Amino acid sequence: MNRPDRGEGAMNAIRVAILGGSGYTALELIKLLLRHPQVRIAAVTSRQEGTPLLAEVHPILSGRLDLRLEQLDVDRLIARGVSCVFSCLPHGASMATLPRLLERGLRVIDLSADYRLRDPNTYAQWYGASHSDLAHLAQAVYGLPELYGEELPTAQLVANPGCYPQTAILGLAPLLAGKAIEPRGIIVDAKSGVSGAGRTPKLTTLFPECNESVSAYAVGNHRHTPEIEQALADVAGEPVEVIFTPHLIPMDRGIFATVYATPLRPVEEEALRAVYRSYYANAPFVRVVDHLPATKYTVGTNYLDLHVRVVRGRVLILAAEDNLIRGASGVAVQNFNRMHGFDERLALE
Amino acid sequence: MNRPDRGEGAMNAIRVAILGGSGYTALELIKLLLRHPQVRIAAVTSRQEGTPLLAEVHPILSGRLDLRLEQLDVDRLIARGVSCVFSCLPHGASMATLPRLLERGLRVIDLSADYRLRDPNTYAQWYGASHSDLAHLAQAVYGLPELYGEELPTAQLVANPGCYPQTAILGLAPLLAGKAIEPRGIIVDAKSGVSGAGRTPKLTTLFPECNESVSAYAVGNHRHTPEIEQALADVAGEPVEVIFTPHLIPMDRGIFATVYATPLRPVEEEALRAVYRSYYANAPFVRVVDHLPATKYTVGTNYLDLHVRVVRGRVLILAAEDNLIRGASGVAVQNFNRMHGFDERLALE
Amino acid sequence: MNRPDRGEGAMNAIRVAILGGSGYTALELIKLLLRHPQVRIAAVTSRQEGTPLLAEVHPILSGRLDLRLEQLDVDRLIARGVSCVFSCLPHGASMATLPRLLERGLRVIDLSADYRLRDPNTYAQWYGASHSDLAHLAQAVYGLPELYGEELPTAQLVANPGCYPQTAILGLAPLLAGKAIEPRGIIVDAKSGVSGAGRTPKLTTLFPECNESVSAYAVGNHRHTPEIEQALADVAGEPVEVIFTPHLIPMDRGIFATVYATPLRPVEEEALRAVYRSYYANAPFVRVVDHLPATKYTVGTNYLDLHVRVVRGRVLILAAEDNLIRGASGVAVQNFNRMHGFDERLALE
Amino acid sequence: MNRPDRGEGAMNAIRVAILGGSGYTALELIKLLLRHPQVRIAAVTSRQEGTPLLAEVHPILSGRLDLRLEQLDVDRLIARGVSCVFSCLPHGASMATLPRLLERGLRVIDLSADYRLRDPNTYAQWYGASHSDLAHLAQAVYGLPELYGEELPTAQLVANPGCYPQTAILGLAPLLAGKAIEPRGIIVDAKSGVSGAGRTPKLTTLFPECNESVSAYAVGNHRHTPEIEQALADVAGEPVEVIFTPHLIPMDRGIFATVYATPLRPVEEEALRAVYRSYYANAPFVRVVDHLPATKYTVGTNYLDLHVRVVRGRVLILAAEDNLIRGASGVAVQNFNRMHGFDERLALE
Repeated sequence: MNRPDRGEGAMNAIRVAILGGSGYTALELIKLLLRHPQVRIAAVTSRQEGTPLLAEVHPILSGRLDLRLEQLDVDRLIARGVSCVFSCLPHGASMATLPRLLERGLRVIDLSADYRLRDPNTYAQWYGASHSDLAHLAQAVYGLPELYGEELPTAQLVANPGCYPQTAILGLAPLLAGKAIEPRGIIVDAKSGVSGAGRTPKLTTLFPECNESVSAYAVGNHRHTPEIEQALADVAGEPVEVIFTPHLIPMDRGIFATVYATPLRPVEEEALRAVYRSYYANAPFVRVVDHLPATKYTVGTNYLDLHVRVVRGRVLILAAEDNLIRGASGVAVQNFNRMHGFDERLALE
Repeated sequence: MNRPDRGEGAMNAIRVAILGGSGYTALELIKLLLRHPQVRIAAVTSRQEGTPLLAEVHPILSGRLDLRLEQLDVDRLIARGVSCVFSCLPHGASMATLPRLLERGLRVIDLSADYRLRDPNTYAQWYGASHSDLAHLAQAVYGLPELYGEELPTAQLVANPGCYPQTAILGLAPLLAGKAIEPRGIIVDAKSGVSGAGRTPKLTTLFPECNESVSAYAVGNHRHTPEIEQALADVAGEPVEVIFTPHLIPMDRGIFATVYATPLRPVEEEALRAVYRSYYANAPFVRVVDHLPATKYTVGTNYLDLHVRVVRGRVLILAAEDNLIRGASGVAVQNFNRMHGFDERLALE
Repeated sequence: MNRPDRGEGAMNAIRVAILGGSGYTALELIKLLLRHPQVRIAAVTSRQEGTPLLAEVHPILSGRLDLRLEQLDVDRLIARGVSCVFSCLPHGASMATLPRLLERGLRVIDLSADYRLRDPNTYAQWYGASHSDLAHLAQAVYGLPELYGEELPTAQLVANPGCYPQTAILGLAPLLAGKAIEPRGIIVDAKSGVSGAGRTPKLTTLFPECNESVSAYAVGNHRHTPEIEQALADVAGEPVEVIFTPHLIPMDRGIFATVYATPLRPVEEEALRAVYRSYYANAPFVRVVDHLPATKYTVGTNYLDLHVRVVRGRVLILAAEDNLIRGASGVAVQNFNRMHGFDERLALE
Repeated sequence: MNRPDRGEGAMNAIRVAILGGSGYTALELIKLLLRHPQVRIAAVTSRQEGTPLLAEVHPILSGRLDLRLEQLDVDRLIARGVSCVFSCLPHGASMATLPRLLERGLRVIDLSADYRLRDPNTYAQWYGASHSDLAHLAQAVYGLPELYGEELPTAQLVANPGCYPQTAILGLAPLLAGKAIEPRGIIVDAKSGVSGAGRTPKLTTLFPECNESVSAYAVGNHRHTPEIEQALADVAGEPVEVIFTPHLIPMDRGIFATVYATPLRPVEEEALRAVYRSYYANAPFVRVVDHLPATKYTVGTNYLDLHVRVVRGRVLILAAEDNLIRGASGVAVQNFNRMHGFDERLALE
């Protein structure tokens, strides 16, 4: 802990704080940042009462980070030299909290959905509440580094992308960029491990309810739909419409997306794969693989694996990732690295 | 539903009610009773608000039992001809509720722990509350049919045994009955699936918390300890002391108990197994097996499998059962059958 | 075992044999038939060496069926009074074995794929071998009782349907029968538990390989594709083309199919559901449900649950079943019941 | 891969080879070594035919290590500058292979059991074959760094400890060192995830066999028993006898050991915990924790968590670890670090 032989203690380490430290994405983020040679975790906050030891809330951190969860106090963060904040607060709480950090000049990576949708009307429609921070919304950069990476070095507020959207967006971008598929009627059939539902106890994610079972949920109305469509419209230069069906799978982590698209002209598998390899040639965390992906081949990593097939004239894209790493905390660190001019792979390999 | 070709509709079927119908044991009980040729389920109650369809609370029952959960109303039960009630209420609620049913002459099988411990002081010590129904406590029969089966035909109130205790009690009874082992220092290391923790959402049984993990809980203070000791003292004719350690296993159902006892005289494996076979010769649901048991070999059944080994002079008993069937609802039906003079196997094979 | 109080021992019970008794479908079949009041299991065969006790191969059957696995001997089966045979042999072995049973007049329910595809060229194309029993292939009835039930009473050879196909066929039949959707480009994205891959050890179904993982397999070339298309073409009266993508899910049993179809005219959800309810009004094992299905709501039962949605102009059908019961052994018993003039629900509720 | 910004490429990196690269421990080892700033993986060998890409055998390594599995060729290893070898060969194969590496001066960390038992008669008794390399057996250091760490800097051959033994040995060492418990009749009831059984397909570790099930195996004859007893006898200065019962748990990884010992004099929980904390004060990877351990709290780490309780006069020690990291590949890296004079935590935090 704060050992000089770990980067944490480097004299010039960037001091960061994590808001909303009791959940799964915060835990993964802390584990990644403990390995980061240029980062020192200065504070972890929680909205819960009391100031428990972090190791009481996350026993896997015992002996690894000697901090207590504390209430958020911006002055205190600044006094400790914090310059960058990761927010793991839920949507709603994020936009209620972050303005006062941003106004003090802190850089923020927000893992909630609050700053992902550029159009506040879309936000209101899908999240059932008006957006309360239009000023910062207008400045936020959507933090999918493979597509918006050039905006990151100068961003103050980065809206970290959703777990599902990354599989669909990165899976479809090469095709839509090349005008190779119909931009409407795209089907994204996605399967997620249970950690994606968060750490708040509820009946649907109780072990005996979801173990030994597969089910679909939020059919036709999952909030990641407009996020997928916004990014894909940016790529395509025209509106894109997806039918997104998430499923709950009895495993801790992992997202697998099976995407079905209709090509606009005859396509060949090998040619498509070449397009993908070329499109992601400079993206170290997108692997265009020749084998059928499995979420297990990505678990614990920041890789997103893509595999392309042509079946009876349709294009199928199979995408796999670790929903907590690539889908949340890993890409947050990747964003952090790009914001600060580091190699984007730092702490992620 | 209520089809004449199912026993349910038999003219002389026994009408039963189930109290506390929203949990896992109630569901298993309903599934078993739907197969019972001499039973008709007349009511299922719940303490929750509203009167949802049973199939809304337990979708697996869709189209199989057309009842609504209702508030308990003793007059109404009696008006419908109910003569026997299964209570799946939690402890505390059971002893607060059952007296008024018993006073009206209903027979009751209580799946809670409220009437299992004969000594109210022991109850108070382990459950942290005084017993509020001493009158019926004194009459209750402990519903482990293999040991107390002769008391069942005349019992009005049967205290259905706990899931863990059955493995330990039936596993040790032949040895203690024969004065073959030391009655103190017996170790019961038990492993249970998560359904044993009930259907109320809590952090410890959230999927991502208990999946891919093993842990011990209630070390040294689990409430099944005095229940095990009471029954085993009955068998042994002297006090028995066990060290009982339950563990949580990432599976829906099943209990596996590994029991370690010290023999009072040299023992041989084959002779011990003969003792067990003889002791359970008339117990159709206790299988003394020659293979190493697995909970999977009992799942969905009312069997409790026992296997005996001698290792370095110690006796090891390995016991396996389905915690929801043999450990709760199946043995409840077995008790019901014996209370009513039926073959104890009805609806259980 | 052969107890007079169980139907098994009824004087007029139908004596059956099970071929290929060491796998998962055979085990489920035996468990169902032990509950059948009109059946007595007279023999279970295996191609493996030796004659192990059934309970050694399937310990869950200990004390429940006192038979040994034996080599197939048709004369012996007939001498024991067997009149109906369930074949759980794998494809290839089935068509090599069944002709000599059929020629002796035995009725056969074949759980393999050998007699499902009417066109032997299609068989050769998808199974990589010529069909060796064209005579019986021409007579076989495809055993999906909801669609071909009227042919069952007179059938000698019933080709029990595949696990995946039932979800797709029953899910789509009402729409195709009503010419409501395009018959081409239908997407069937299916998710299956691991038991569907059988009991032969292989790397892909080793626990640490498939646990905590989702993957697609046989993309574009799964052998259930032509089976789905054959039955749906029967319903539609024209060729039907599906894109079928199976996925492996870390659970024992259950199949969930998410089906995407393009309507030929504007559709409304409620109207569609009414169509489904009407279409399956006389099908006791197809439940058209109002809730989102889950495989858990069907586990251990012969029910196939269907739920219909309209999302952005597409029709989505969600189907769930227990792959070993409804998907194999349960529907085999349902076929057996119809072949013999029994209520199709016998032993299945 | 071999990037200069990773330690791998450091000019003075130690070049290592891994033998037996297709299994789970090899994979974990590679993942750890890829993070090691002083290591370069120069070769990975396999006894299987062909020279597949490592990423074909372990798809999670795609794009991370561009090597092919190759046949072992000692000259080639030496020509590439390899000075240290990790052997993940199974027992038997290890002692048949390693002598020719050792004779060429290579240092070896052997993850098999071949060099763990000092007495070749004990080896022959438990492993069913004579030891074929007595010369090196006599020199081997048992690689449990917390107990034998001082011998590591000069060791040529390190016998990496077994997964189960570490939990029992480290769990009991403080008590036996202090003569606080009876050295006989110690019970070690251990629970392991399935990866401990290796990557070779077999029926017992097929998903549908071990999922949703708990069972005991190798009762009374598991080969880790003499390993536990040898190390504990070293600590105690007298013979130690354990009754060791392993169980198979439906999870990928993790070992949980529940240890029961009889104190020789009255003990208090708090005093015992102080003994443990003191004993492991300089052991960064042994955490004496105040909470009940869970394997999940150690997964992916090299920590071994210990918790001590007194229950009815017995001492209970609860130990948890990741069987593939702390139980195999992590402790191998820890040994490597100590052998080479590095901080033992390198690549492990």
